[in-house]
Amino acid sequence: MNDHEKNCKAATIATPQLLSPQNAADLLHSVDAFLFDCDGVIWKGDKLIDGVPQTLEMLRSKGKKLVFVTNNSTKSRRQYAKKFQTLGIEVSEEEIFSSSFAAAMFLKVNDFPREKKVYVVGEEGILEELELAGFTGLGGPEDGKKMVQLKPNCLFEHDKDVGAVVVGLDQYINYYKLQYATLCIRENPGCLFIATNRDAVGHMTDLQEWPGAGCMVAAVCGSTQKEPIVVGKPSTFMMEFLLKKFHTNTSRMCMVGDRLDTDILFGQNSGCRTLLVFSGVTTQSSLQDPTNDIQPDYYTSKISDLLNLLGA
Amino acid sequence: MNDHEKNCKAATIATPQLLSPQNAADLLHSVDAFLFDCDGVIWKGDKLIDGVPQTLEMLRSKGKKLVFVTNNSTKSRRQYAKKFQTLGIEVSEEEIFSSSFAAAMFLKVNDFPREKKVYVVGEEGILEELELAGFTGLGGPEDGKKMVQLKPNCLFEHDKDVGAVVVGLDQYINYYKLQYATLCIRENPGCLFIATNRDAVGHMTDLQEWPGAGCMVAAVCGSTQKEPIVVGKPSTFMMEFLLKKFHTNTSRMCMVGDRLDTDILFGQNSGCRTLLVFSGVTTQSSLQDPTNDIQPDYYTSKISDLLNLLGA
Repeated sequence: MNDHEKNCKAATIATPQLLSPQNAADLLHSVDAFLFDCDGVIWKGDKLIDGVPQTLEMLRSKGKKLVFVTNNSTKSRRQYAKKFQTLGIEVSEEEIFSSSFAAAMFLKVNDFPREKKVYVVGEEGILEELELAGFTGLGGPEDGKKMVQLKPNCLFEHDKDVGAVVVGLDQYINYYKLQYATLCIRENPGCLFIATNRDAVGHMTDLQEWPGAGCMVAAVCGSTQKEPIVVGKPSTFMMEFLLKKFHTNTSRMCMVGDRLDTDILFGQNSGCRTLLVFSGVTTQSSLQDPTNDIQPDYYTSKISDLLNLLGA
Repeated sequence: MNDHEKNCKAATIATPQLLSPQNAADLLHSVDAFLFDCDGVIWKGDKLIDGVPQTLEMLRSKGKKLVFVTNNSTKSRRQYAKKFQTLGIEVSEEEIFSSSFAAAMFLKVNDFPREKKVYVVGEEGILEELELAGFTGLGGPEDGKKMVQLKPNCLFEHDKDVGAVVVGLDQYINYYKLQYATLCIRENPGCLFIATNRDAVGHMTDLQEWPGAGCMVAAVCGSTQKEPIVVGKPSTFMMEFLLKKFHTNTSRMCMVGDRLDTDILFGQNSGCRTLLVFSGVTTQSSLQDPTNDIQPDYYTSKISDLLNLLGA
């Protein structure tokens, strides 16, 4: 890169603004819908982050639409709505766009044949969304206890009718599932390889981070030497569904997330305003690291700062 | 690439020769040592490939040194010598260079502190080689049955004294080990990330291929977003040890293998002659695919062709 290019690049990247009473008020007036990531924004594991219910309530009272866009594929939309309810927050299924739902919708809009099957390296959420969309899922938690037999004359059989493999976060990942997915992708002609997302890690519990779907997806890439179709953030695939439901322009939406490479990039790819929070995986120092080239419009500590800054 | 560059590139790649009575005799005269890969060359799973004992015997009778260089880290050198014996072939431990041994040697030559520990995502072979080299290994098969608890207030603890993580082929891969390895690499200052190899698949059984170490290594790359130090083929790290043992020049060695991206590349990187066999993962059509840019000096169906071509 020469000096001229460097200057041009620098000129096109606006410096992120720390959220303040003034720009928080501007943001509130200029958007109709807030899109929230969940892990690290709304909760950590099963624990709500401070001030979340009050913040969401305030935004609803001001007529804002709320949407929850999560890459965590372990639950279906129905299961997420239930989780919100358990945590004391009323959210409808229609307001939730999970990557498990995205995987099923990807197959639907691409006319995936009903007679074909889908092998799942992942958890219950993907299987439930596949079933709701009318597809036959195999694998998932059921295969979590299966062992392999590395013995002479033992042939590991796989279903030749599997036409797609969906890989998401899977705490029951094992060699059986890896071999099953690998055989389908390598040997079934035209078999699709779909990743719910590629998050490296996530707050599966309140106290620490754990390997994310990016770990399982990489494993299957490693054995198949193929790259997946990604349906979760930062892919904008879910935005199409969201726009059908909520009749507003993406420029009047704000994506709120804790990850630069998924949430903020998704927001930017879709043409939304973006707000980064430090209540999840990203720290202020990683935002300001010279190697980081994803800059949100705004950043703040946690979403309840909106409440305090707006004096609501 | 412009036309000139294309021509230059084409000019530097010699066309591989099908093994014939004439060039087989030339090859035999011009080398002192044959380096054999094992999976897909000597055996598939636990089954010997046709004509192997007779071929090795003929080469020994002609005074050739035989060396076995395997990326499969599930066994130690001692365990490999035993496997050869079970299959009716006499091979000494000193003739075997496995990636499990390479991992232990890498730590040794780099003065890895004895008070530090090594976490293993892999099988018995790595742990045994670590122990023989005087290091303390953790993990491995023992952690294959451990489960994780994704519950509030549960903290997954890891040993802060782990200074290296070694990842190899692991048929007992699970989320526990992936989290353990990830925490060590991300949180223990200076922790090394060593891969025995990155083979996508391998003949773990005679009837089919299975995910190789490349699958487990990719999973850990996916969660840590770090790249490993590779000690197995195509890295030439093992060649240093081999040369210390066998006093010959690499130009008088021939590497025989079934994989282009590990065996043949290792041979070329080391300055050896190279012979590709089709008894393992590579087919003639993948050798001749225009996207393949790794060309061996010679190719043939299986190593016993040497026997037939030489009329021995």
